Amino acid sequence: MNQDYIKADPWSIIEEGFDARRVKSSESLFSIGNGAMGQRANFEEQYSGPTFQGSYIAGVYYPDKTRVGWWKNGYPEYFAKVINAPNWIGIDVNINGEALDLNNCKMVSDFKRELNMKEGWLSRSFTATLQNDIQVKVETKRFLSLDLDEVGAIAYNITPLNSDATIAFIPYLDSGITNEDSNWDDKFWDTTNVSHKNDQAFIEAKTMKTNFHTCTFMSSQLFLNKKPLSSSHKTQTDATRINFRYEHTVKENETYAIHKFGGYVVDRNHDKNKLVAIAQNIIEKSKNKGYEQLLEDQKKAWDAIWNMSDISIEGDVKAQQGIRFNIFQLNQTYLGRDAKLNIGPKGFTGEKYGGSTYWDTEAYCIPFYMATKDQKVARTLLEYRYHHLEKAIENAAKLGFSNGAALYPMVTMNGEECHNEWEITFEEIHRNGAIAYAIFNYQRFTGDYSYVPEKGLEVLIGIARFWQQRASFSTEKNQYVILGVTGPNEYENNVNNNWYTNYIAQWCINFAMESIAIVKRDFSKDYERIIKKTALTQTEISSWKSVADHMYLPYSEKHEVYLQQDGFLDKNLITVSELDKSQRPINQKWSWDRILRSPYIKQADTLQGFYFFEDHFDEGTLERHFDFYEPFTVHESSLSPCVHSIQAAKLNRMEQAYTFYLRTSRLDLDDYNHEVHEGLHITSMAGTWMSIVEGFGGMRVRNNTLSFTPRIPEQWSAYSFKINFRNQIIKVTVNQKETAFELEGSEKLDILVNNKMLTLEPNKSLSFS
Amino acid sequence: MNQDYIKADPWSIIEEGFDARRVKSSESLFSIGNGAMGQRANFEEQYSGPTFQGSYIAGVYYPDKTRVGWWKNGYPEYFAKVINAPNWIGIDVNINGEALDLNNCKMVSDFKRELNMKEGWLSRSFTATLQNDIQVKVETKRFLSLDLDEVGAIAYNITPLNSDATIAFIPYLDSGITNEDSNWDDKFWDTTNVSHKNDQAFIEAKTMKTNFHTCTFMSSQLFLNKKPLSSSHKTQTDATRINFRYEHTVKENETYAIHKFGGYVVDRNHDKNKLVAIAQNIIEKSKNKGYEQLLEDQKKAWDAIWNMSDISIEGDVKAQQGIRFNIFQLNQTYLGRDAKLNIGPKGFTGEKYGGSTYWDTEAYCIPFYMATKDQKVARTLLEYRYHHLEKAIENAAKLGFSNGAALYPMVTMNGEECHNEWEITFEEIHRNGAIAYAIFNYQRFTGDYSYVPEKGLEVLIGIARFWQQRASFSTEKNQYVILGVTGPNEYENNVNNNWYTNYIAQWCINFAMESIAIVKRDFSKDYERIIKKTALTQTEISSWKSVADHMYLPYSEKHEVYLQQDGFLDKNLITVSELDKSQRPINQKWSWDRILRSPYIKQADTLQGFYFFEDHFDEGTLERHFDFYEPFTVHESSLSPCVHSIQAAKLNRMEQAYTFYLRTSRLDLDDYNHEVHEGLHITSMAGTWMSIVEGFGGMRVRNNTLSFTPRIPEQWSAYSFKINFRNQIIKVTVNQKETAFELEGSEKLDILVNNKMLTLEPNKSLSFS
Repeated sequence: MNQDYIKADPWSIIEEGFDARRVKSSESLFSIGNGAMGQRANFEEQYSGPTFQGSYIAGVYYPDKTRVGWWKNGYPEYFAKVINAPNWIGIDVNINGEALDLNNCKMVSDFKRELNMKEGWLSRSFTATLQNDIQVKVETKRFLSLDLDEVGAIAYNITPLNSDATIAFIPYLDSGITNEDSNWDDKFWDTTNVSHKNDQAFIEAKTMKTNFHTCTFMSSQLFLNKKPLSSSHKTQTDATRINFRYEHTVKENETYAIHKFGGYVVDRNHDKNKLVAIAQNIIEKSKNKGYEQLLEDQKKAWDAIWNMSDISIEGDVKAQQGIRFNIFQLNQTYLGRDAKLNIGPKGFTGEKYGGSTYWDTEAYCIPFYMATKDQKVARTLLEYRYHHLEKAIENAAKLGFSNGAALYPMVTMNGEECHNEWEITFEEIHRNGAIAYAIFNYQRFTGDYSYVPEKGLEVLIGIARFWQQRASFSTEKNQYVILGVTGPNEYENNVNNNWYTNYIAQWCINFAMESIAIVKRDFSKDYERIIKKTALTQTEISSWKSVADHMYLPYSEKHEVYLQQDGFLDKNLITVSELDKSQRPINQKWSWDRILRSPYIKQADTLQGFYFFEDHFDEGTLERHFDFYEPFTVHESSLSPCVHSIQAAKLNRMEQAYTFYLRTSRLDLDDYNHEVHEGLHITSMAGTWMSIVEGFGGMRVRNNTLSFTPRIPEQWSAYSFKINFRNQIIKVTVNQKETAFELEGSEKLDILVNNKMLTLEPNKSLSFS
Repeated sequence: MNQDYIKADPWSIIEEGFDARRVKSSESLFSIGNGAMGQRANFEEQYSGPTFQGSYIAGVYYPDKTRVGWWKNGYPEYFAKVINAPNWIGIDVNINGEALDLNNCKMVSDFKRELNMKEGWLSRSFTATLQNDIQVKVETKRFLSLDLDEVGAIAYNITPLNSDATIAFIPYLDSGITNEDSNWDDKFWDTTNVSHKNDQAFIEAKTMKTNFHTCTFMSSQLFLNKKPLSSSHKTQTDATRINFRYEHTVKENETYAIHKFGGYVVDRNHDKNKLVAIAQNIIEKSKNKGYEQLLEDQKKAWDAIWNMSDISIEGDVKAQQGIRFNIFQLNQTYLGRDAKLNIGPKGFTGEKYGGSTYWDTEAYCIPFYMATKDQKVARTLLEYRYHHLEKAIENAAKLGFSNGAALYPMVTMNGEECHNEWEITFEEIHRNGAIAYAIFNYQRFTGDYSYVPEKGLEVLIGIARFWQQRASFSTEKNQYVILGVTGPNEYENNVNNNWYTNYIAQWCINFAMESIAIVKRDFSKDYERIIKKTALTQTEISSWKSVADHMYLPYSEKHEVYLQQDGFLDKNLITVSELDKSQRPINQKWSWDRILRSPYIKQADTLQGFYFFEDHFDEGTLERHFDFYEPFTVHESSLSPCVHSIQAAKLNRMEQAYTFYLRTSRLDLDDYNHEVHEGLHITSMAGTWMSIVEGFGGMRVRNNTLSFTPRIPEQWSAYSFKINFRNQIIKVTVNQKETAFELEGSEKLDILVNNKMLTLEPNKSLSFS
């Protein structure tokens, strides 16, 4: 744990007291988003201290030139970069001629931020004494509307406490913004028009190269002591900025307030020639509702989300706060409304890495969305990859593959590769496996067998083709091998026969072959269409089968474990607990070569395979592998603790499972990885959800049956979650004595609990001890 | 072969006919240098076509910021970059108001360049018709003086052929220059003063950050029909440039000429506050001698070099031209006069890569300098690494090594690492082995046993410490292993147990232990000093011995060969001859992962070990390894053909040896690697020399005895070379019938020829058939 300033609270993230050193961290932690846009918790008013300004529009990116020291064939020339969008939240405040700036006050007291997760808003309050000795009380609240997802609203209240004061609110729009994370200092935005009409302002700007046309807009209402104040404003514009100045002489203890409405309209969703008119329409709609009503709608919208996706934990406020923070951020990032979006690793909280889509989506995020949303949402996530299939085939072709073999990019925004380290871009090919696995997992969980014939099979064929071509035959081993890969454990590069990769490659081919057989049998029209489109032959399928049937899987007879890769046992096998603490985290202390030749594992690798393919191994085998690999695991990836928590729970090691749970759920709140200022780890938050539902709750779907093996950490008195299983909602409540099930649905449902069949009746509760 | 425009000639490099597309290639090929400075063959007069301007001062560099896509711990923050220095060769020519510019003439005919290697000068002649229809004949010659190595001289003659003309020579100095190869577009030079006095001009400039102070200078003499012309000039200066304008009305068929003297003085050699005065002194000295006398001195100086280092080949002009070009460029690059200099991979012909010193120096260059120069020169090259020992220890410490373990940088200018790819910088550690091997090789060849006690032993101890720490014990193999390395074959990265690396590590430890024992026995004062300085204990030496005694060396019983690395036999072992030609060169056609998992070898790796440690293996073993590895070798490193040529000759495969010889000797002239425009491959040129002397000549030194096993390709009628063996000169002439030996010395010398002892008498010739 690196920080501990967030107050424990079941429903809110709270910071008390102003500390300039925490500003960047809090800007990340208090970020807000609504799936269509999002922003770091930057102050509305001027702030001259260290800050990381960020406001992001979903799906709007810039193709930045790739930066490398030494070019390698196959690197992408350009890659999609998340970019900072024009600022619409800005409200400069001027008090008797002095700008309010928390970095430049004589005193700041009673500073408090709250991110209210239950209702979906961010507030801030403080008392400040300016250099001119005027003392003011400030209270602000803002939110990004879930209902009208192109608009956000801010209420900014200011009360002079020790004298009358002339106060000016200067709400503004600004497209003269820069990126924190820029490769070449290129200018990303081209501002094409700055305009205003009455109390509305607009900046039209398009991204360079990608030509996303956007209109950033604002309009405001003024209040004195909560009563509307008809107020004229002075307008000031330059090439990339527009200010409205609303000035009023405010008596001591009177409250002057502004409600600012702003946001973006983008030609991803609208005619690019009508953006200003559409923005005007949205402003009108928002102002007609008014700030208070919009806020009421916001509470209702979040209430609906929480009603389905909340996990309650009793007896452990920090654990409770952690899981809700994770669920809240996931919903802020992605709601499944737009098929072209995905779940970026930093969501709307930072810019690092570029691209929005990693294998995290398939491996970690889909289970969460599948169980807490309508199953269409998970299907939309699968379709996202279907839409990128052509680009995955092109990507594989760049690396020398042919005949429709598909290699999905490591990182992408639009289907093209965004990453440029050869050992990752070219070699971390197991990502292809997760994409096939998600199709399998979706089908297993939802029982929706229509996706494979309609779309999924083409993806599976492209992936199977890739694996068949990527494997090579070793005459030495008389088996197929996969040379030169990086497994999920990125602390190994360019290894031969990573067990996880070989195993999932074999599984992908088998699953593709099974799926082909089923589609042929049950969906003959789809089968004909797909065979024609892919030119797939029986001979080719035989060549796949040969690879799958003779895949080499490294194994140690002595240890009775599969080996993470060839040569793993040659390492100096000193466990993490024997390693001096001063050496941790090794990714900040050691040079890369030292990390690579060490036995230390960044995140589940062999154990990731045991997580995906749990049913292929008995519990003793899992235990042997867990006991072999976990002691070498440093968990320096955000994706590591959750899988280990699930497996520890399965092995009934509850104390260990609980420790891993805390680490995954409070990774950002407590800043375990010393990097929260760069943004949050969004995708691993879905792993936190899994570690409760699949770990403690032991939720599985096997043979079309929902099953549970409930366990509870001794630190908790009870926890509960809901699962949307094939359009029936099951609520599970576990306490130290028993588990209660409640079915919100219309039909009976048979479930397995601790391997015993239980029949749930609609709208009845059933306990099981 | 990629180009074929260089005329075959035994002593000159000749280009005929002007082709703008060849300008950059010729600028590299016709480069001149004198060990202290050098320059690409840029035109003196203005040229508006594509050109790569380059003039370099030995030892003057700039610490450029490292550029990477994704930072890894241990990367250097800055690295030494070769930089383009102020231009002193420029002479703009103006004819009746029009600038002479070969890219902008109505016609250019009779264009010819010649690089006369025998005499050490570059000439150019052409007839040009300007846009104003004046036709002129131009003849230029320039050289960088070997005797006065801070000065160069240019004779520029111009003759109007079809009318009288007013001709202006505008010699200039210019420090407003840029680098072709710049990471961050930083400005490298800060011009501090531009001054002139009478007919002398000076630009004082210092490099940013490194603060090398330089004075670039010029002065000129004018002639009409070879008679001195007292001529006044107009002066024009700006912040980074000074022009003198000498104008004269020249009658048709009269020749107007300028002799320009220019160059650099640098505070590496002089008091930085006296640079202008020193430059004035050099100008006076040069002008007193005059251009013609300087040229005569140049011829004599080159004659002395050739007298010792020439290799003549009869019956094969292209082979003859190739070897002389190689020897000439090596001598232009490095003459052994300055202990802080080394042999840059591009010499003074380009900027690529940064740094000047690679393992090439020890592995390829030292043998050439050792046998063709005073043995002090080789010793100076060894001392260069001794002076960098502290930095090598610091470098190792950055990677987690301790107790004086030394890792020499992959690329360096001042002892600090200049390279930033983890798989090279951190893993291509075999370079340490070559540095120890060079000490061994020097001692073996020269019989100078004083270097090790005086300096070499400390280097050997640092290197042995590194290997002991870098190896780790495999309980699985019950032997020491070296994990995660890149061998000489850079088409493999992060492999385990590269045989060459493990073998040379073992050898280094053994050689260090032997050397310690000898120093202890024979140089006890040095021994005490070194033991005190290094705090070396017997316990530590025992730990080294344990590693060397139990070093794992991968071996295939089936193939009876050492394996390049663990897992080599798992590859798809298709030979290069079976590979479709369209796939070559693989480094331009394939993505990096594909190269890595292929069996293809960039340059000798296991065979490099057989080259260094030839005596450890019998000929049958060499043959088996050569036959196993060469068929997988693509020779895409400039350093590859020479070693294979030597081994093919040893195996009496003369046709193959000859093919490899042509490839190495004409690599740049024929541009095999499609990159000669970036500069020449200087260090591999020493390999060319080895392929004749050690390959065809079979020269070795074993047990203090010089031996030969002469062979001759059937394409040649004869060849000859000289060896400076312990201050006696042996000339060897081989023809199809016999080998003649001639001893230039004062004492008899026993040599072995085809394993038979032969006694050479001073100044007598002896034949052997």
